[in-house]
Amino acid sequence: MINCTNKNTLNLNADKKSSLKSSLGLNSMESMIIKGVGYKEHYHKGQVIFAAGDKGDHVYLIESGWVKVYRISAEGRNVSVGIRNPGELMGLADVMLGEDRKCFSGAISSVSLLVIPEQEFKKLMDRHPTLAKKVIKLLSARLCEAETLVQGLVCREASSRLALFLMNLCEKMGEQTQNGIRINLHLTHEEIANMVGTTRQTVTSLINIFKQENIVIYEGRAIRIIHPDKLLNWVI
Amino acid sequence: MINCTNKNTLNLNADKKSSLKSSLGLNSMESMIIKGVGYKEHYHKGQVIFAAGDKGDHVYLIESGWVKVYRISAEGRNVSVGIRNPGELMGLADVMLGEDRKCFSGAISSVSLLVIPEQEFKKLMDRHPTLAKKVIKLLSARLCEAETLVQGLVCREASSRLALFLMNLCEKMGEQTQNGIRINLHLTHEEIANMVGTTRQTVTSLINIFKQENIVIYEGRAIRIIHPDKLLNWVI
Repeated sequence: MINCTNKNTLNLNADKKSSLKSSLGLNSMESMIIKGVGYKEHYHKGQVIFAAGDKGDHVYLIESGWVKVYRISAEGRNVSVGIRNPGELMGLADVMLGEDRKCFSGAISSVSLLVIPEQEFKKLMDRHPTLAKKVIKLLSARLCEAETLVQGLVCREASSRLALFLMNLCEKMGEQTQNGIRINLHLTHEEIANMVGTTRQTVTSLINIFKQENIVIYEGRAIRIIHPDKLLNWVI
Repeated sequence: MINCTNKNTLNLNADKKSSLKSSLGLNSMESMIIKGVGYKEHYHKGQVIFAAGDKGDHVYLIESGWVKVYRISAEGRNVSVGIRNPGELMGLADVMLGEDRKCFSGAISSVSLLVIPEQEFKKLMDRHPTLAKKVIKLLSARLCEAETLVQGLVCREASSRLALFLMNLCEKMGEQTQNGIRINLHLTHEEIANMVGTTRQTVTSLINIFKQENIVIYEGRAIRIIHPDKLLNWVI
């Protein structure tokens, strides 16, 4: 799935294509069209952007920063269903279905958004079929990602899911350095646990093992993957 | 989420609306448009319609019967990601992304399909914006369903997932009878286990408990839910 050419770099082949497609940022023309009808909002790390039960009446374009989309169970358990990248649209499905939000959305870094009211966004899709096609591709890619999450939860151990999650972070936002790949996103073990579908304790134990095996190191709260090849052994 | 008014009937409120939306069958006009460019295929129960790795170059309209969509892990574990209903389009996401199939699709009853080549389907979407909008809604609904599966796998016990699965089957294809709701779909415990994300042994044990508690009975291989209210207690 992912090829490691040497201990410090990652070469992503077929899956990289798929992953690039799944980021599906807007091109400059599409962004320009949207900017004409939206207004800006800024969120600090930790702030909630929308909550389950809110009316799904806005689409968001993430101009900068990273956003987690998650659900909260009746018992208060927090389950991540995805991380949204800069350049991506967010909050589409509920708007397209005319339904209330089922998920929460929260800033996991400082975030700037362009907020587009539902009716304006729908008018734009009618006027610009390329935007409608982009929305179709984006929803398709997110569906595939969600199905991959389902498969991972059934078929993979927590250790494998955590390793895969870190590999995906490398791919999405990793900075290649001379000493491995740096993920400059400050996530607590609790947040990682919610994103991997396990407990905080399990994440802490596994990260300790990864540290002992010289796979990762923490630099403040950023993570550096110094041996992606060894991390890959945990994915399989 | 689901209201039971008495022991043998189910009243579905807000979630029924959502579920009805998620079935999202085509209207007669849309079906007619599609019928002009597709050809028919028939499958027996158990036959594979498409397989992971196949080129995603056809969209399918299910004219009759029920289809499961599933993935198979490297270790051969089979994980269901959804059941597709009569009247629904299937195989959309890979076609929209221009990618190979990631899932398998298999007939879980006798199935009649209309098969539409990718290019024909895309031309139809260009010519008929209402069809493109239906595709957007369908993908949105499936994304929400897949995210609900993710949440269920993390937050619910196998018993709760099995009860919820049976409730969903009631809603999708149940026949209301004087003695409960009959689900006339012949699924093995192995198949149910794949759909619920657990083992065959667990499904067998749980079904035995449901039988002992007079919640379900088997009639041949069809299941009758005689006490949906009691089944609901297992969902929560």
